[in-house]
Amino acid sequence: MADIKNTSKGLLPEPTLRRLPWYLAYVRLLDNRHVEYVSSTQIAKEINVDASQIAKDLSFINIKGKTRIGYEVHKLVKELTDFLGFKHKHSAFMIGAGSLGGALMQDVGLAQYGLNIVAGFDVNPDLIGKSICGVPIFGIDELARRQREYGVQIAVLAVPVEHAQQVTDVIIQSGLKAIWNFTPFRIKVPAGIVIQNTSIYAHLAVMYNRMDEMNAK
Amino acid sequence: MADIKNTSKGLLPEPTLRRLPWYLAYVRLLDNRHVEYVSSTQIAKEINVDASQIAKDLSFINIKGKTRIGYEVHKLVKELTDFLGFKHKHSAFMIGAGSLGGALMQDVGLAQYGLNIVAGFDVNPDLIGKSICGVPIFGIDELARRQREYGVQIAVLAVPVEHAQQVTDVIIQSGLKAIWNFTPFRIKVPAGIVIQNTSIYAHLAVMYNRMDEMNAK
Repeated sequence: MADIKNTSKGLLPEPTLRRLPWYLAYVRLLDNRHVEYVSSTQIAKEINVDASQIAKDLSFINIKGKTRIGYEVHKLVKELTDFLGFKHKHSAFMIGAGSLGGALMQDVGLAQYGLNIVAGFDVNPDLIGKSICGVPIFGIDELARRQREYGVQIAVLAVPVEHAQQVTDVIIQSGLKAIWNFTPFRIKVPAGIVIQNTSIYAHLAVMYNRMDEMNAK
Repeated sequence: MADIKNTSKGLLPEPTLRRLPWYLAYVRLLDNRHVEYVSSTQIAKEINVDASQIAKDLSFINIKGKTRIGYEVHKLVKELTDFLGFKHKHSAFMIGAGSLGGALMQDVGLAQYGLNIVAGFDVNPDLIGKSICGVPIFGIDELARRQREYGVQIAVLAVPVEHAQQVTDVIIQSGLKAIWNFTPFRIKVPAGIVIQNTSIYAHLAVMYNRMDEMNAK
């Protein structure tokens, strides 16, 4: 997978893309407090990223601060939100409406970041035909038909790990173009399919280990 | 924050710690299918990580394959599970039992990876005194007292972004030692506190951008 993005907006490495939402979270706070200007040094101090890195990241998306004044807060919020795609509505299917999938369907935070889950899919007959927060759950065998009906491009994958690859293949055959993978399994996809891995459980391993280290001191 | 861990088990970089759960997910599958041996080349092919990287990562935790045979699958599952801390029970408090926090309290997957949420905390009077999946929700003002009562070390942070830093300070004052941060805010913590950032919404930004790139082709 390419790590660099070449658009009219310029080359954009994934680490930059992951840092931009941190800047946004902080400048949104400032905006709510009616702060007018912020310097990269000030952002750096608050979020533990080097000031020169912040200036570099923002220059990638053509945002430049003014000497001795810094960035215009309100404008920065608007430009970051636009650039990150959080303002657009992206429709998505939740694949696997069990424990984690069902939980994510209840999270209003996703909609605030532009992700709109319009349907869930499962193999469990107890779930099929039901709905979670008003979002209907269909059988996984309906995926291709529903994709044509809804025109959805994004699948959020939250099935048991042993079915991750097999379900991924079905998702791709059904015409979806992007998979947000919440399973700890490294699914394989053909070229042309966007994949984003968010294995929250893997982060637990890091946390446990750092805690062992602390406790050993 | 240090990126390297020095324990009796050897130096362990964070990227390695994040890859180990991928290996575990795959070898667990093989174990369920009663496969006896697996080579790093075979793992590499399945999960898109270099075979030499896999061998190196596993050697960090003193797991070595046999020439021409590879790794013993069942033993590898056991050793990885042990090492990653997924077998131990780690009690945790959920701080913020709203949309995302409440959803995570319903996810049985966390318990399977060793995280046991024993209580939730919120400021919303509609939530305080209630319970989610049998887990009680207390007022955030009870945090210090409940920490002493339960002896919990881990806080899972899922409050609105504008309260992230302030609530973090309360968490630390209450005696908790590790914070799993689900907010997009880069909270600051003093030395000696373990922090793990899992900003799922930041991953959406990467996915949206990669999709724009695909669609532009």
